[in-house]
Amino acid sequence: MLEKVSLEEKFGSFDDLWRPRIAGGVNDVDVKLAKLKGEFVWHHHPREDELFLVVRGRLTMRLRDGAVEVGPGEFLIVPAGVEHLPVADEETWVLLVEPRSTLNTGNVRNARTVETLDRV
Amino acid sequence: MLEKVSLEEKFGSFDDLWRPRIAGGVNDVDVKLAKLKGEFVWHHHPREDELFLVVRGRLTMRLRDGAVEVGPGEFLIVPAGVEHLPVADEETWVLLVEPRSTLNTGNVRNARTVETLDRV
Repeated sequence: MLEKVSLEEKFGSFDDLWRPRIAGGVNDVDVKLAKLKGEFVWHHHPREDELFLVVRGRLTMRLRDGAVEVGPGEFLIVPAGVEHLPVADEETWVLLVEPRSTLNTGNVRNARTVETLDRV
Repeated sequence: MLEKVSLEEKFGSFDDLWRPRIAGGVNDVDVKLAKLKGEFVWHHHPREDELFLVVRGRLTMRLRDGAVEVGPGEFLIVPAGVEHLPVADEETWVLLVEPRSTLNTGNVRNARTVETLDRV
């Protein structure tokens, strides 16, 4: 029997920031959950579009030509190749939809890079 | 500049049932919004997994071996090939994530089939 996923329950099961978990897959796209707080790193994904749906808190997506504020019940799609810097003043929960090949830091590899994602 | 999508605003812009709208795309996967009420048709998608995230209301996904109740903030992924029948007693708003090739009625073509989807 198929099992549904409760976002509240899954987000309640981990605490660390900037470390996406895999919550499901749709063909070759993953649904990931991540908690964000503070500032990430400027990066882009060469081939992958990336959707950020805010579940709680507030995400500021800085772009080279401005910034977009995304609140609960809103999503933003950052197309492949577009440089972006996620920033969250408060702890923010996001659901991500992106191809399985997507690395969290995109074209950059540093201490924030998560090479292998856990399932949640 | 990129534009965010407000689910509340997009769902507020249409009324018809069982007619998904395209709200965005992530590589070859679409994000669709649909309002459901009543019973759909039994079908499966030969190649496409299908994610249903409930935004409002309550979705009962009937399966050949039972049923799963999905409420707001919960999602269910129906893998390719799995027969399913969406049912909603009250008007229910769902966000769908599925490959662009997905036909709403899957392997069935009837009066509920929507061949060409509008953007919302």
